[in-house]
Amino acid sequence: MKQSQLFTRTRREAPKDEVSKNAQLLIRAGYIHKEMAGVYDFLPLGLRVLNKIVNIIREEINTIGGQELQMTALQDRASWEATGRFDDAAVDNWFKTKLKNGTDLGLGFTHEEPLTAIMKDHIRSFRDLPAYAYQFQTKFRNEARAKSGIMRCREFLMKDLYSFSRDQKEHDAFYEKAKQAYVKIFERLGLGDKTYITSASGGSFSKYSHEFQTLSDAGEDTIYVNEGASKKGQGAKIAVNKEVLNDEVLADLGVKRADLVEKKAIEVGNIFNLGTRFSDALGLVFQDEKGKSLPVIMGSYGIGPGRVMGTIVELFADEKGIVWPEAVAPFAVHLVALFDAGGKVRAAAEQIYADLNAKGIEVLYDDRDASAGEKFSDSDLIGIPVRWVVSEKTLAAGGAAGASVTVEVKDRKTGKVEMKKL
Amino acid sequence: MKQSQLFTRTRREAPKDEVSKNAQLLIRAGYIHKEMAGVYDFLPLGLRVLNKIVNIIREEINTIGGQELQMTALQDRASWEATGRFDDAAVDNWFKTKLKNGTDLGLGFTHEEPLTAIMKDHIRSFRDLPAYAYQFQTKFRNEARAKSGIMRCREFLMKDLYSFSRDQKEHDAFYEKAKQAYVKIFERLGLGDKTYITSASGGSFSKYSHEFQTLSDAGEDTIYVNEGASKKGQGAKIAVNKEVLNDEVLADLGVKRADLVEKKAIEVGNIFNLGTRFSDALGLVFQDEKGKSLPVIMGSYGIGPGRVMGTIVELFADEKGIVWPEAVAPFAVHLVALFDAGGKVRAAAEQIYADLNAKGIEVLYDDRDASAGEKFSDSDLIGIPVRWVVSEKTLAAGGAAGASVTVEVKDRKTGKVEMKKL
Repeated sequence: MKQSQLFTRTRREAPKDEVSKNAQLLIRAGYIHKEMAGVYDFLPLGLRVLNKIVNIIREEINTIGGQELQMTALQDRASWEATGRFDDAAVDNWFKTKLKNGTDLGLGFTHEEPLTAIMKDHIRSFRDLPAYAYQFQTKFRNEARAKSGIMRCREFLMKDLYSFSRDQKEHDAFYEKAKQAYVKIFERLGLGDKTYITSASGGSFSKYSHEFQTLSDAGEDTIYVNEGASKKGQGAKIAVNKEVLNDEVLADLGVKRADLVEKKAIEVGNIFNLGTRFSDALGLVFQDEKGKSLPVIMGSYGIGPGRVMGTIVELFADEKGIVWPEAVAPFAVHLVALFDAGGKVRAAAEQIYADLNAKGIEVLYDDRDASAGEKFSDSDLIGIPVRWVVSEKTLAAGGAAGASVTVEVKDRKTGKVEMKKL
Repeated sequence: MKQSQLFTRTRREAPKDEVSKNAQLLIRAGYIHKEMAGVYDFLPLGLRVLNKIVNIIREEINTIGGQELQMTALQDRASWEATGRFDDAAVDNWFKTKLKNGTDLGLGFTHEEPLTAIMKDHIRSFRDLPAYAYQFQTKFRNEARAKSGIMRCREFLMKDLYSFSRDQKEHDAFYEKAKQAYVKIFERLGLGDKTYITSASGGSFSKYSHEFQTLSDAGEDTIYVNEGASKKGQGAKIAVNKEVLNDEVLADLGVKRADLVEKKAIEVGNIFNLGTRFSDALGLVFQDEKGKSLPVIMGSYGIGPGRVMGTIVELFADEKGIVWPEAVAPFAVHLVALFDAGGKVRAAAEQIYADLNAKGIEVLYDDRDASAGEKFSDSDLIGIPVRWVVSEKTLAAGGAAGASVTVEVKDRKTGKVEMKKL
């Protein structure tokens, strides 16, 4: 894409009311726009990053058998009253609205109830199980405070997967499979090194749930990490959420309190055993091989792609701007042309741009009439992993006319520069 | 995909409160689920169709220079008060909600105001124009009546494109380009033959807007069509909305009242000149070449992918079920295996399934233990364009063992059957 055609522009300052680093940088670089606290629009660059995150998650969830669907935000009270969750006294972050005839509706903050109701139409016998359904869908949560940029929003995209199993054994096997899929997702997203599978409170049907917590001072959670064991490669990166840290948990996990270090972390994903809480309340049953009616065992598995995007910004940004990992960068290459008066540089840059596009390499081409300083500082702020500079100087380095075209290649993360003959 | 793994099942009856043909069939075939009137979930088959429609629209809008973004449903009152559209007396289909602190919010039914506000951050001079921004985003409209299935929803996906131009000439050129892109979109979606560019009321800044109206008795609109001219190939398919039919309009379009026939139609798209209504109200100005400050000229261009999906069902379904055009079908081929006791048919079907997948052909493989009658009636209801049947009979038709594998190929639309050697 030509940067002259991208309608967004960078800016020096973020809005004064924006306190989070992730949103400050994303607004300044033209990735997002702030509607109000916790409510952000994704501009073209931002939507490209968000879609890359979504596609990585989608691929891994499809691999473990997930079937994608799309439920609605508008929620009728019936299913939610069956579980006691429609009342604002039970759930304090509903956005509520009304039909013209006065009927109260909620805007879904999660989707266990409606999906359980849908499944009642489709699950009859053991032959219909297991089933795994997921969506990328916009959730609404009426947060009293929303100060973490795109990491805690009042309106946000969520990948929510729900599993429906015949028995605990089948459920446990899938729960483990989902856990491993999550490990792979966060590795692919560039967060693997800093992300810990964290035991957290489990609710009525399970001793623990598991959170995926990424270490960051911008995090709202406090976790205890066994860094020594992780470093020695003794299995997965394991941690305990402060809210459940006690002797029993330490014994369950086989770790000593003295080995644990307190850290701030961002919850980038979570997985829950739901047991029969929703299937009992809503009557989701199946007939087993002997014709006996049994409640379906459920689990839920969430990741917020926007929160992941914010986490990546928080972790990798430097004083010059954003630094995207390759897998989620809006473009693979930022081609920056420093035009000369004669038009030689423009001709070379247009050719390089056409060649990269022909090879299917995603390139943002800064073809604007702007100074070198402005182009470089915008490029640093936008944070595409690799910058190719083409200028009179780089062309001269390619040797006499007719010899190869040369560009200067700069790695955004390391700052390393080298000349590259094309 | 193996049908045994698809969690949805077909059903004989639609819900009793569902009066529209499109939703009745889509629910019975397992494409959608009804949450309440005008609010439908898209199940895996339905989401596949919706995504195909979305991708066709996206390709054509990208071709005319559209840049995709994603705005939010939650809307602060500020921008809307500037245009006088926050008040329920001015706009009667808002869904409203509140923040914890009591602040009133709306759920966007369209996005002129917030996008105009975003553009104020990015448009300064004539060099920043024109700009074309669009999204596929969920709209909320508090419809008093919602009886047309997925053709008139209270929550629905919308492609809304907005243009920002320097002057009327630049605007008019893009408006025409968008009109032609729409013609191409509806052709690709299989609706070209029955879709008319229909003059409708234009608002303050333009004599007319243009609706894309698809002839159907299920439509809520009444239009007047010059069928004779269309049949004789005299230019594009042109019509007039009943709401603006008068002598002046007939003169403008150069048609005689006597040549027009009244028809029911579904509005599948519309394009509007917005003039400076929003840029004046919200202060979206740019500096021209001489440094003069001028308001930006705007246009808006909408298509509802869900309504398109419903329209396709209404138009092409027959007494057996849905009939999808190839371009939007959830799968290209429905492979139906009628298993024998010996396992020969299963082996052949699995091989065909693997071969089709290897070729990148999307196939739904009915591998269920069910009767031939059930499989055929489900297949007719689901409406995939081509059915391949593999059975003892078709294999025998392939000749002695070792000769070619043969399937029966049936066209869903024409019912035509032929044997095909693979």
